[in-house]
Amino acid sequence: MAFKHITSRDNPVYKHLRKLADNARERKSSGLTLLEGVHLIEGYLQTQGEPQLMIIPEGKSSLEASNLMQHLVDVDTIMLPTLMFADLTPVSSSSGIMALVPVPEIALPEIVNFALLIENIQDPGNLGSILRTAAAAGVQAAYLTKGCTDAWSPKALRGGQGAQLVLPLVENVDAVEVAEQFAGKTLALTMHGQSLYDQALSGPVLFAVGNEGAGISEALQHAVNHCVSIPMAHQGVLALESLNAAAATAVALFECQRQRLQG
Amino acid sequence: MAFKHITSRDNPVYKHLRKLADNARERKSSGLTLLEGVHLIEGYLQTQGEPQLMIIPEGKSSLEASNLMQHLVDVDTIMLPTLMFADLTPVSSSSGIMALVPVPEIALPEIVNFALLIENIQDPGNLGSILRTAAAAGVQAAYLTKGCTDAWSPKALRGGQGAQLVLPLVENVDAVEVAEQFAGKTLALTMHGQSLYDQALSGPVLFAVGNEGAGISEALQHAVNHCVSIPMAHQGVLALESLNAAAATAVALFECQRQRLQG
Repeated sequence: MAFKHITSRDNPVYKHLRKLADNARERKSSGLTLLEGVHLIEGYLQTQGEPQLMIIPEGKSSLEASNLMQHLVDVDTIMLPTLMFADLTPVSSSSGIMALVPVPEIALPEIVNFALLIENIQDPGNLGSILRTAAAAGVQAAYLTKGCTDAWSPKALRGGQGAQLVLPLVENVDAVEVAEQFAGKTLALTMHGQSLYDQALSGPVLFAVGNEGAGISEALQHAVNHCVSIPMAHQGVLALESLNAAAATAVALFECQRQRLQG
Repeated sequence: MAFKHITSRDNPVYKHLRKLADNARERKSSGLTLLEGVHLIEGYLQTQGEPQLMIIPEGKSSLEASNLMQHLVDVDTIMLPTLMFADLTPVSSSSGIMALVPVPEIALPEIVNFALLIENIQDPGNLGSILRTAAAAGVQAAYLTKGCTDAWSPKALRGGQGAQLVLPLVENVDAVEVAEQFAGKTLALTMHGQSLYDQALSGPVLFAVGNEGAGISEALQHAVNHCVSIPMAHQGVLALESLNAAAATAVALFECQRQRLQG
């Protein structure tokens, strides 16, 4: 392996890493992204293989990070001054280790029985959390519309806690097309639909979740079989009772999971 | 009403607002906090009454904010230069209106049949999201341990989307004491417990949710009747499948809600 100590912000490798950290277009055109922290990098090793490059800060690293580096002696490594390293990470208390990796492409199963369609989710933390929940619930494919924030940004990866490494993602989809072509029941999570709990969910199901503020687009509401809602305790009393998109997705996907386990 | 244009960062009123925005101790000792945005301020008007002070930035305000201000002509108002206003808010795209309010104290019902105990949640956005979910699920009291982040910080209020205005909060509790004194079933959400779905949840129930990283403390695990888990699709295969604290809370609380509606 090659080890390099980079101390100039004008170094072309460093400049490229900065772009990858900040810029979805750069990630898309290069097919690369950055993973931050031991947990994500271990997940990558377990599912995809070795990173292209390891990035560590000067100074003492955590025990966890040092242990991980000992398994990666064959991988090219660069060391950066603390502040330059910090500028690559979305977190203030970094675990002191990053990796440059190709964005993985996880194959779709031949038959998708449990799918999630994500329409225009804007916040990277929300998107990450939704993908993490989907992976935990056993979703087999997540379809993301063009209007979604990039699933491979450092913040979305952090929110996903590795979900992006196991869950097949189909990006830049047309929401209506995906709903119309799904071979099974299609349901949109809305504010004023039928009760989620009145739906039989043990067969092939696609759930659609919409933008944090605007909800599911009208076109998509028309394209799905049913608009469903999660019954709230005091629905509408003060317009204060509602769920955020990530919580609503968790409730809906695990209601599927419950019906499958108990059916 | 009195209207004041403040342009100096050394103004004592402004300095006090800065402290309230940044500092839990200041909020606690003064019993005051800041609400940001039309939605939260409208929620406060509907549930508590008029704010003590309105705060607006120089320049053109949104239609929503102007409409709201017309309902608050009797409330003292200060106007701030844009940058000074921005330094009081947790969001980059502020809706251009804030209010100074006494922290509301919402009375506990005499009998609490559905409670949430929150142990050492650190992230204000997570705490807000958990409280929002609890309010939507019909939780009647939320108990927060001393180790929790402040529920009245601007970020937690934003995450709660008004939950803090309707849900009785009991802060600085001893987790074990709360669990032991609850008159009903007490359940802790853990990684390796019995299935959530095997629990009868239509009677009085207290759920406990733990710290994002460490989970429920051992002492609290011993104090509750049962440790329960949400069954994951591929439990443990890659240690990548898990739920964050807010998503797990949503699934558990709405499983209660479902059993109550269907039982």
